[in-house]
This record gives sequence, C-alpha cells and structure tokens, in this order.
Amino acid sequence: MNNSNSGQMNFGQWMADIQARTEDALDRALPSAAIAPARLHEAMRYAVLGGGKRVRPLLVHAAGQLTGAAPERLDRVACALEMIHAYSLVHDDMPCMDDDVLRRGKPTVHVQFDEATALLVGDALQTLAFQHVTDAPVCDAPARQLGMIRQLAIATGSRGMAGGQAIDLASVGLQLSLAELEFMHIHKTGALIRASVTLGAQCGQPLGDAEMETLDHVGKVIGLLFQVVDDILDTEADTATLGKTAGKDAANDKPTYVSLLGVSRARELAEEMYQDAIARLAPFGDAGQRLSELTRFIIRRQF
Amino acid sequence: MNNSNSGQMNFGQWMADIQARTEDALDRALPSAAIAPARLHEAMRYAVLGGGKRVRPLLVHAAGQLTGAAPERLDRVACALEMIHAYSLVHDDMPCMDDDVLRRGKPTVHVQFDEATALLVGDALQTLAFQHVTDAPVCDAPARQLGMIRQLAIATGSRGMAGGQAIDLASVGLQLSLAELEFMHIHKTGALIRASVTLGAQCGQPLGDAEMETLDHVGKVIGLLFQVVDDILDTEADTATLGKTAGKDAANDKPTYVSLLGVSRARELAEEMYQDAIARLAPFGDAGQRLSELTRFIIRRQF
Repeated sequence: MNNSNSGQMNFGQWMADIQARTEDALDRALPSAAIAPARLHEAMRYAVLGGGKRVRPLLVHAAGQLTGAAPERLDRVACALEMIHAYSLVHDDMPCMDDDVLRRGKPTVHVQFDEATALLVGDALQTLAFQHVTDAPVCDAPARQLGMIRQLAIATGSRGMAGGQAIDLASVGLQLSLAELEFMHIHKTGALIRASVTLGAQCGQPLGDAEMETLDHVGKVIGLLFQVVDDILDTEADTATLGKTAGKDAANDKPTYVSLLGVSRARELAEEMYQDAIARLAPFGDAGQRLSELTRFIIRRQF
Repeated sequence: MNNSNSGQMNFGQWMADIQARTEDALDRALPSAAIAPARLHEAMRYAVLGGGKRVRPLLVHAAGQLTGAAPERLDRVACALEMIHAYSLVHDDMPCMDDDVLRRGKPTVHVQFDEATALLVGDALQTLAFQHVTDAPVCDAPARQLGMIRQLAIATGSRGMAGGQAIDLASVGLQLSLAELEFMHIHKTGALIRASVTLGAQCGQPLGDAEMETLDHVGKVIGLLFQVVDDILDTEADTATLGKTAGKDAANDKPTYVSLLGVSRARELAEEMYQDAIARLAPFGDAGQRLSELTRFIIRRQF
C-alpha cells in the first residue's frame, strides 16, 4: 500500500488524484517553453499537457499497487509511457498518416504549429521518454531498470506500437479476419497498454514469473478491451464527446471490431475480456483492487 | 589496445575494417525484412544499410581505443548512434522538412517507399537505437550503462540533435551571426558526433573527470570541424560526388560557414579546429592515434 490514504479514496477520487499528479509530473518533466528552442518546447508541451484520459499512467499506478511501488517511481514510468503515447498521436495525426485536425478537443499539433514542428515534436517526445526513465531510479536495481527500458523500447518500436501502425496503414480497405484485426491491435495500442501494466508492477517488489505472466496476460486483455470499446464509441459517440473526429474509421474504410462483428457481438466480446481480466486479478486480493476497478472503468467508459 | 592487430593496420585499413564490421553489426541488429511488418522492416534496412561514411561508428571505435574498450561493446554503441543518425536523415529528407529526393546516392525513403512509411521508419529506428543499447552490456556497470543511455538521449533530443534541427528550420532566410550558426551546429550535427566520442570512451576503462572533459571538448570541436568541412564541400563538390543534392544550402537560403565567412576563412577555421583537437589528444599518446588520424581524415575528406 504505497499511497497511505489509497484505502480511503474511492475509485473516482483515486483516478482524479493520479490524473492530477501525472499532469504535474509531466509539467516538470517537459522542458520549459522559455528554453531554446522555444517553439519546439512550446509545441511539445501543447502536445502532452492539459488533455487526455491518462489511461497509461492510471494503469502504471494501478499495477504499482500490486507490488507496493513508490508513487514517485510510478510517476516516472507513467510520464515516459504518456510521452510515447503523445508522440504517436502527433505523428499519427499528420497529413501523411491519418490527416486529422482535432485531438483532445484542440487543433492537432501540425495544424496549431506546422508539419515540420509536429514531426520534431514527436521525435523529441520519444527521446525524452527514454531520457526520463534514465534520469532517476524507477526500481531498486540498475540492471532491472535496463531491462525495463528494453521492454519499453520493444513495446514502442517496429514489433510493437510503430509496427502496429504500419500494419494498420497496410490494412486500409482490406477485409481482415478477426485474428488479423487482433494482431494489429495487440501491436498498435495493445503493446503500450500492456507495458503500462507490466512496467508499473516492476517498480515495486519483484513478483514471481507466474505472477508476471498473469499480469502480462491481463495487460494484453486490457489493451484489446480498450480497443473494442474504442471501436464501439467511434461508431456511437459524436465528435464533441470524443474530443476527436468521430466515425473516422468507417469513413476511412478501416476494419474495426464493430465492422467485423457488429455492435452487439463487440459488446459481448468486451464483456468476456473484462471477466477474464477480473478473474485473473482475483488471486492478488486487495492489492489488485485499483487495477480491477480501472478495468471496469475502461469497459464502462463513455469517452 | 583492444584490436590485437590495430597497431599493424594503417589508417585506411582500420577505417575499412570498422566500416565493414559496422555494416555487419547493423545487419544483425535490424529486424529481418521477412518479419512482420515486412514493408516497415524492409524500409528500415534500406535507410540504414549499404551506405554512409559511418563517421559516428568510426568515432566510437577511435575513442574506444583510448580506454581499451571491447570491440563488441563499441559495435553496440556505434550501431545505436548510426540508427539515430539514419532516423534523423529519413525525417529531415521528408517533404515537410528539407524535401530531398537523393541520399547516399539512392532515392530517399519517402520517395522509394512513401511518406507514412518514412515517418514510421524514422520513429522505429530511434526506438531500436534505445533498445539496442539495453540488449547487452556496453560497459562493466549497469548504473554506468544507464548514464550512457541518458547521455545518448540528451544528445538526440530537443536540447541536442532534434533541437538543432528546429533551430535550423527557424533560421532559413535569416542573417545569423557566427555565434548563432555555431550554436545551431553544436546541436544539429555536433551533439551526436560529440556523444560518439564520449560514449565510445565510456565503453572501456573509466577515465578521470579531467580526461573526460578533454574528450568532450575534442568531440565538440570535431563536430564543428565536420560541419565547416561539410559547408565547404556543399559549395564546391557536385551531386554525384556527394551522393546527395549539392548546393542545396545556398538554394534554400540557409546560412553556412561559407556564406558567413567565405571559403578561404572557413578553411582557416577548419585548420584551427583541427590543430586544437590534435593538441588536446597529444597527452593520450599512442592510445589517441586513431582519433587523431580520424580527425585529420575529416578535415581532408572530399566526400
């Protein structure tokens, strides 16, 4: 129980607390817009601060509860993951990729600034993520920290998030099978969500191999669950609610869980994934409370 | 003396040897084009393999001679630096940046593949660089390795190479002072060259603070020297010799050492930098031989 009062907070309070401390930690981690190159730093801050659900930081802190990790170490890993997530959004929104103009209710970075700046913002945010997890300890042993950075890189790179993006681009207009769609999402959004769970847990007391394998599976399931819910929301919500352009996947002829399965079966699938995750977290007892609550929140979310 | 036969090789043989082993090491470090996502991996290999002077790997190995570093460790750091250099070239060549079609005598990545792939290639190469320096030891202590990764990130990010690129973009069409031009280059190309020297040295036996400071200064001077020579070559050489579009800086109204000082004074400046570096390397004796030779090669180069 790293947070002395975490037992007293309800889930909503806990979530607001983590979101607020993540915002603070990101604010401190990002270079000031007063430091040269000022416009680049201003744009990096624009891309990261003041928005987003902070799902990955929430997962890091929830998983850290399982191993009694210090909140300051979790903040560091959470910031790195959020920087990488933000970099991927900035690049994905660029004209040569998804060509989107709205993100988190604001103009995208290349619209607010320019394309060259957006390119550099994404590049520099990725670098800052790797710098940030070397600036101070995130666990007790430097060798373990090296392993965590390696896992972060694998989740981010061509066989993780960036690779998923490449598969996504290549699949526009194609008929994918459910297995192919899952393969894409396990990489594109799943890898970083999965890493949020496993890296958060590694900030605290070491777990056994079997427990880490269970958490890795739970992280994978949460990643897919998140995507299924995203696809349902993209079909049903409007742009104002989402803070990003709604109905874009259908407009772009991109395969989704909804286009493949229909809304009703997609909802059932999400429920099955949720139950799977909850069942696997049960043996962790009270230490798994936040991660269970967060998984429930993800399936119930309306944004 | 890490290379048992390095004393017997002349500089040209040594350089060819390092270039060949770097190509091998990069070939092994990059994912096979047979692994999904195949097109992304094919494009990553296209961007990195079969070209380039490998200046940063040469500097890593030359600096490693100063501390008796194991060649395999130097290969690892050299590959990481070359991946970051390659990522920056791929992104710099994109239409929203320098919009160039030729690099190392071949079509640039966005021309050969497409813009979205070029964006992802750069992103994934940066990630792979950070993964690569966590895959195995590059020095004797994990804590020191963390510090080296941190230095690599600082050299690469918004206060290093990416920041220099932002300053460069902002300076097109402006009259820069010599100090401002130097500030830009210390970041844009200088940071990574400087890191090549200091990181290479850190792969071997630890040096004292004063020696590391000397090497850091030498790395900074070599970085600027490299740029001055680049500006002279850009004015005088033709496209076929350079393997990239010649005369581009003048065409783009970009400030250079030549536009600011004229060719004659730029040549004098390069000579002064060269003499400064050589003088500071003298106390290292024979262990500094390769780095001295390499610095001489950089000022004499015609490519």
